[in-house]
Amino acid sequence: MTIQPPTTTPSWQTLSTKKRTTLHSLLPPSTILPNTLISTLPSTSPTAPAPPPLPVHSALSIPATSDILTPHELEITSAYDATALVEMMSTGKLKSVDVVGAFIKRASIAQQVVNCLTEVMFEEAMERAKECDKFFEREGRGMGMLHGLPISLKDSFNVVGTHTTIGYIDYLSRPPATTDSTLITLLRAEGAVFYCKTNLPQTMMTADTHNNVFGRTLNPYNLGFTAGGSTGGEGALIAMGGSILGLATDIAGSCRIPALCCGLFSFKPTAGRVPFGGKVAPGRLGSPCPIMPVIGPMGRSVRDAELILRTMITDKTWEFDAGVLGVPWRTVQPVARTLRFGLIRGHEKRPLHPPIAKTLHTAATLLKARGHEVVLLDHLIPDLWDMWTLACKFFSLDPKNTPMEILKTGNEPKVPSVANAPMEDTSDGWKPTLDELFDLNVERFQVLKKFHDLIVEHGLDAILLPGYQATAVPHDQFGEAIYTALVNMLNYPSAIFPFLKADKAVDASFAKADVTYEPPYEPEIFEGMPTHIQVMGKPMQDEELIEILKVVEKVLADVPLK
Amino acid sequence: MTIQPPTTTPSWQTLSTKKRTTLHSLLPPSTILPNTLISTLPSTSPTAPAPPPLPVHSALSIPATSDILTPHELEITSAYDATALVEMMSTGKLKSVDVVGAFIKRASIAQQVVNCLTEVMFEEAMERAKECDKFFEREGRGMGMLHGLPISLKDSFNVVGTHTTIGYIDYLSRPPATTDSTLITLLRAEGAVFYCKTNLPQTMMTADTHNNVFGRTLNPYNLGFTAGGSTGGEGALIAMGGSILGLATDIAGSCRIPALCCGLFSFKPTAGRVPFGGKVAPGRLGSPCPIMPVIGPMGRSVRDAELILRTMITDKTWEFDAGVLGVPWRTVQPVARTLRFGLIRGHEKRPLHPPIAKTLHTAATLLKARGHEVVLLDHLIPDLWDMWTLACKFFSLDPKNTPMEILKTGNEPKVPSVANAPMEDTSDGWKPTLDELFDLNVERFQVLKKFHDLIVEHGLDAILLPGYQATAVPHDQFGEAIYTALVNMLNYPSAIFPFLKADKAVDASFAKADVTYEPPYEPEIFEGMPTHIQVMGKPMQDEELIEILKVVEKVLADVPLK
Repeated sequence: MTIQPPTTTPSWQTLSTKKRTTLHSLLPPSTILPNTLISTLPSTSPTAPAPPPLPVHSALSIPATSDILTPHELEITSAYDATALVEMMSTGKLKSVDVVGAFIKRASIAQQVVNCLTEVMFEEAMERAKECDKFFEREGRGMGMLHGLPISLKDSFNVVGTHTTIGYIDYLSRPPATTDSTLITLLRAEGAVFYCKTNLPQTMMTADTHNNVFGRTLNPYNLGFTAGGSTGGEGALIAMGGSILGLATDIAGSCRIPALCCGLFSFKPTAGRVPFGGKVAPGRLGSPCPIMPVIGPMGRSVRDAELILRTMITDKTWEFDAGVLGVPWRTVQPVARTLRFGLIRGHEKRPLHPPIAKTLHTAATLLKARGHEVVLLDHLIPDLWDMWTLACKFFSLDPKNTPMEILKTGNEPKVPSVANAPMEDTSDGWKPTLDELFDLNVERFQVLKKFHDLIVEHGLDAILLPGYQATAVPHDQFGEAIYTALVNMLNYPSAIFPFLKADKAVDASFAKADVTYEPPYEPEIFEGMPTHIQVMGKPMQDEELIEILKVVEKVLADVPLK
Repeated sequence: MTIQPPTTTPSWQTLSTKKRTTLHSLLPPSTILPNTLISTLPSTSPTAPAPPPLPVHSALSIPATSDILTPHELEITSAYDATALVEMMSTGKLKSVDVVGAFIKRASIAQQVVNCLTEVMFEEAMERAKECDKFFEREGRGMGMLHGLPISLKDSFNVVGTHTTIGYIDYLSRPPATTDSTLITLLRAEGAVFYCKTNLPQTMMTADTHNNVFGRTLNPYNLGFTAGGSTGGEGALIAMGGSILGLATDIAGSCRIPALCCGLFSFKPTAGRVPFGGKVAPGRLGSPCPIMPVIGPMGRSVRDAELILRTMITDKTWEFDAGVLGVPWRTVQPVARTLRFGLIRGHEKRPLHPPIAKTLHTAATLLKARGHEVVLLDHLIPDLWDMWTLACKFFSLDPKNTPMEILKTGNEPKVPSVANAPMEDTSDGWKPTLDELFDLNVERFQVLKKFHDLIVEHGLDAILLPGYQATAVPHDQFGEAIYTALVNMLNYPSAIFPFLKADKAVDASFAKADVTYEPPYEPEIFEGMPTHIQVMGKPMQDEELIEILKVVEKVLADVPLK
């Protein structure tokens, strides 16, 4: 008879440390930052309290000043957009191994500074880059529309041989993925190179990218600030130059909030157009929630978003994914007329911080100056706070509250942003029933109808609005996502543009004395943070919105960034 | 003090009689059939039992033999399809008043024979036809893609000034519609002329077009048989030549079952493509059921379906309807290669009656003879009976069972086909919960995935299958709609082709000794009834399916109809 030793379940802290140590060991030795620099950075350990605010711009300069990348590598990772890199690689002007190698180095640096990665596939990526280069040498053309291009992925994508823990302690015990997400299969066939996956929040339903497996991702513009969520790992990585194009998901703002927090462009398509199959979900499958998650790109330019959308949305896409809508990307004409924009300047419960009010005002003013029309919608639209409350109910339909069950199974506590989730406040003890779901659906359709009628009546091409009432904010202070979730409720496509910066001297004139800013507005701590606008199009008219965005991009680009 | 007389609520029989008397009074006097003929027809009163089977073809010949239509009117209503009529009206070869007038006469006759109408708008239609003709005279071109064309409508469409009772006694007290269904607005702008609405079943969820307001619609091929449902009024009307193109809805077969019962062509598009807004629903709004109702045409030819689909599905469609998907009709190339069809020959619980087995076999054989491939799928697909059970659960999600509440409010009994609804049997006392809805959705997605993978793996272009195991059957014997509901579960587009007839001499060789036919197969009573095939395409590839159907139509047309 053999006596079994008593089984001891390791604590979540032990499991997390082991995972993070493994991850660190996979960073290329040549990219390891000196201890002297690392020790000045705040801890991102899951057990540590939120780090205090640090000086702005301390992190962003590290890739260029650390002497780890060559000048050519710095140029590759900072001087182009993805479209330009693909073009150069597809015509032999650049090699994929050089591009992928440069981004691997920079991603490794980013990881050490802002804690943005979850999985690295650096060796596989270099092998794949070599394959791409060989293909070009042999065939004299690129492998596909994304020939040789490194693309970073939110952790929830499955890549064969790689773990998909999505930040749950319980999922650490799962084996590596044995199948690719359908999008991975599709993009790889077009020459994409996958080299890393990135961090996300516990449950994916907060704007603070923080979980007990990987810890907290920091905002490169201010390490004491959130990088946004749920695709905050992508936001921080791309802002650090460690990726040029990343794939996010979005059900309440997860593709757009990290973009607006980290000074990036992002595009949330109409749901169903990009294949969503084969990913790992943070909650229960089969939800009847009419607000559907959607995959969208985060990156540097409108044309990069168009490049990858056109690649992902073809007449063959359905063959990759039973759940995709199967509507091929249409080629539409560039805009050759003046446009008519609606303008939403915010809700009284979440008034715009002065830097955001300034940026939205400036964008609208510039568009008007170029002959475009702007129609104020504040007094015409359904109440945004009510829409947020409705959205929170839809997000809380699972009677089993599966994410909380997963935390229990993993013996891990809620991270602060989950413990204090604004949804918990808003839903006020509400419990879902099938009967009420009918009424919620009717309520949602009334909202849809009001926005629809407004757009048709006023002949609007798109709507300008904030993506959030502020820039990135200190960790765990983000709160409600009313300006992004409304777009998911409507299922309209929408983009975030980085535009201008917080500048207290200029912003002062946009401050209002009679409002309560939430979170509090203190000009000093937001100084220099990137500001943004959101531009929302019409449903299924993703193609038309891209053309409108090109117009907006051009108008905004004429203003020197401050 | 005034003494109020006691209020007496009229019985549903009284209310029904009043409504039907009014309807009859609106038929043009010149179209009233002689009493000697009418008295030979079975009663369609809501209170009468189902009429006994009558000789085949007794009804179909009445329009031509009753001397009410002129030879030119008979030609207009029988010699062309809608595409041809529109072309003639748009080039001045025919006047809309002549076309609309002819169909009004024939619809009036049909009403007296098969009881297919619910509302008539004959005067408004003649006014509108004059407008169309004046437009042509003035402009030298048609008003739109449907210039001058009479189109009949299932009763659930709203037309301003006309009642929409959908066969509920309770809804008789509602005022006439004050807004048009969005599709009506859209089609009218293209020159369509609406002249009548047609009968449907109580609750719209049976295949017997029978309710307590309008009574029962009869099948023109055999007045003792169902015209199918739920769009049975259209089926009977079009088969009688009283309409050339009708608009149906379909959530489990309602556009296809009447077509296969009445020897017509019909097309059920992918859900969401045709605007569904502003109709009257038979149940509760806001259902989270993932199987969505869809509008489709019933008529005479594939090109007529294409004509109206192309008209309804444009890049402007969303402007008419907040709920439509907004995916414009694509122009695709005609098929210029051999096709690969899957073939489903039925489920053991509902084996194909010999006439249907023969017809499906003949169609597959003809397609193979023309070089197309046919892949047998019977052993590869998910269990169709399980899919039906799942669909029934989805259709029973409303905890309030609103249709039954509406019957109670109207103090009316269930009609036999509702009282004995197959869903009641199948769902076996099942009560819906939100928790289980998650699991049902997962189950549905697994079915979707299996069909998807089968289609991709075998490179199928379309799937041939029955629309029902039999021809039209005697009243109240239709039972489960497993061969149509599976298509709604998948949300694939699908069409019914009328092809061949029941012919006991030929069909005998397709009879099987070891099966139980349901409903019973008695060769004599089905003799001469139209038989059919169903052709199912891929989701959102409605355009591709239309091109495939043109190939099938041509192959089938080369066989002389028996």
